[in-house]
Amino acid sequence: MKKEFTVTPWEVKGNIDYNRLIKEFGTSSIDNALLKRIEKHTGNLHYLLRRKIFFSHRDLNWLLDEYEKGNKFFLYTGRAPSSHTHLGHLVPWMFTKWLQDKFKVDLWFQFPDEEKFLFKDNLTLEDTERFTQENMLDVIALGFNPKKTKFLVDTKNADLMYKEAIKVAKKITFSTAKASFGFTDETNLGSIFYTSMQAVPAFLPSILKNKKIPCLIPHAIDQDPHFRVARDVMPKINQYKPASIHCRFLPGLSEGGKMSGSEGHTIFTVDDQKTVSNKIRKYAFSGGRNTLEEHRKKGGNPDIDISYQYLTFFEEDDKKLEKTCNDYKSGKLLSGELKEILIEKLNKFLKQHQKNREKAEKQISKFILK
Amino acid sequence: MKKEFTVTPWEVKGNIDYNRLIKEFGTSSIDNALLKRIEKHTGNLHYLLRRKIFFSHRDLNWLLDEYEKGNKFFLYTGRAPSSHTHLGHLVPWMFTKWLQDKFKVDLWFQFPDEEKFLFKDNLTLEDTERFTQENMLDVIALGFNPKKTKFLVDTKNADLMYKEAIKVAKKITFSTAKASFGFTDETNLGSIFYTSMQAVPAFLPSILKNKKIPCLIPHAIDQDPHFRVARDVMPKINQYKPASIHCRFLPGLSEGGKMSGSEGHTIFTVDDQKTVSNKIRKYAFSGGRNTLEEHRKKGGNPDIDISYQYLTFFEEDDKKLEKTCNDYKSGKLLSGELKEILIEKLNKFLKQHQKNREKAEKQISKFILK
Repeated sequence: MKKEFTVTPWEVKGNIDYNRLIKEFGTSSIDNALLKRIEKHTGNLHYLLRRKIFFSHRDLNWLLDEYEKGNKFFLYTGRAPSSHTHLGHLVPWMFTKWLQDKFKVDLWFQFPDEEKFLFKDNLTLEDTERFTQENMLDVIALGFNPKKTKFLVDTKNADLMYKEAIKVAKKITFSTAKASFGFTDETNLGSIFYTSMQAVPAFLPSILKNKKIPCLIPHAIDQDPHFRVARDVMPKINQYKPASIHCRFLPGLSEGGKMSGSEGHTIFTVDDQKTVSNKIRKYAFSGGRNTLEEHRKKGGNPDIDISYQYLTFFEEDDKKLEKTCNDYKSGKLLSGELKEILIEKLNKFLKQHQKNREKAEKQISKFILK
Repeated sequence: MKKEFTVTPWEVKGNIDYNRLIKEFGTSSIDNALLKRIEKHTGNLHYLLRRKIFFSHRDLNWLLDEYEKGNKFFLYTGRAPSSHTHLGHLVPWMFTKWLQDKFKVDLWFQFPDEEKFLFKDNLTLEDTERFTQENMLDVIALGFNPKKTKFLVDTKNADLMYKEAIKVAKKITFSTAKASFGFTDETNLGSIFYTSMQAVPAFLPSILKNKKIPCLIPHAIDQDPHFRVARDVMPKINQYKPASIHCRFLPGLSEGGKMSGSEGHTIFTVDDQKTVSNKIRKYAFSGGRNTLEEHRKKGGNPDIDISYQYLTFFEEDDKKLEKTCNDYKSGKLLSGELKEILIEKLNKFLKQHQKNREKAEKQISKFILK
């Protein structure tokens, strides 16, 4: 049976069956008992948890066991710079910020500026350097606490990272890398080595503080192969396996799957209001009916309507969201009107984000690892 | 036909046919015309050149063309720390020092402290760190000019090196690495990546000075596969192919091939006089005859006598060496007496070296790259 979807760190396409991913990747779904356990510490649940957009995890119960014993964890997430930041990137970061605030923990934010250079023929290191700066502004704009957040840039912080990466690399054979990432004899040596660098932030704080500290990695599920390999290696170098919590992908505007910075019809954080409006009006896939009459009678389908799906990622208010859903299903709300609701929501969000982004420029130095 | 010898960066064994190596590796032999051309600049010829211990090269004529046009080169050599320094290591370094003095050029000396860690199961990073310090003392003891010599330590200088290494790594496929180094699916990711780090010092000075500078690498011929791969890559990243000059191996005391720090019967620079004497008396393979009578009559064979071979590497005086050779061949000099000549020579050399080594400790900081 041919698979209808693909999810690797470098390619996401097709109609993704997230339950099947949990089985294939060997992760655990986030059940209500776990949600309650989290809520005990955080007081409330982030809407991305309530809506099961963060749907899967590894070892989160172990992490909370340790936390309850007084063994605080740190957060690790990241961004491989290859384009401007788009809305899809923001999803795990917004959630990570919430975790940082609620658990009062450190965050190590990795910018593996070599990854996309190694995996994409046409991308130069000058490109990835420029986008590293741009992407940093978006991270800072989300309001991370500079006292508790450190940026790791692979090529800049290699004096700390390379020594740790080779400890990981010594424990991974090409055979394992082939099976995990689909490498062939034509893969370049840098791409083959790269996963070792992605493993480093999961234990670098433990090295620097000379004690084992639990790590939680919030990330989109496509990065799981890297951390699966890292988890196999960690006990061999006397470190904890990192725990992780996985989100679904913000779909592409027209094609579903995952929003991608290298494809068209993507909403970037630097897009102006008119551009955002045009992209949504023109490209957002609609779950509405073919005629106005039919739509009023049978209603739209929010499950396949991209504008509605985006609202589940960006509209925090459950009641507003529910009303929109019901109005759409009943036919009261037209596709065009639904698009306008999303446009208003996103443009309001981006206006504030872009203001924060401007101020972020001066703050970068506070986040850079000394 | 089975090959009677093996020469790879990680293994040297058997009776090495150096002329065949030149053909197999595709290097050029150093002929008399080239020796004269070198002498034109240096005034005299180092005994390691006169004796064709440095016997092979790549692009040395191109390097001298550039030099004569006023485009000065820099030197690059190195040591992968895994044990104390032995006499075999000193050979290319002594020659490199001569080149530095004669051409008044910079030397970049690499200590790839990750290499042997990655390639040897039992070696730890603590081991290689310790031997890096020890090996540095031996380099300094040879009298390199601290104003013109920079030490590069891979794990410490990775902030400079990793970014350059990935440019190289992007241009080498696993297929090429397999063919060049005999890697298999069971090779670890760090070992696979490593050759990219060894390529870096060949162009790092060009990056730092933002102009292309020719590079000459004096090294034992077993390292050639690394630089063959590097030479293929350099034009693709807009850098000169490094030139190189290759020496034969100082043979092991008893087994020939190449002196190895991980095998027994090896003379280390830290060995005391008694240890050196004992090792030579006990293990140095003799080209003498079975009985005193036969030796006096037929004479010894210097070509297979390890003590004599060692003198060709360490006795600078051609006349003394020739006399020893003739006396041995005629039967006038006995094997035991030949051993004593070598013992005296080496112990005198090592006594001075060890004095220099003690003073070197305080000088390390002058050589470390800031």
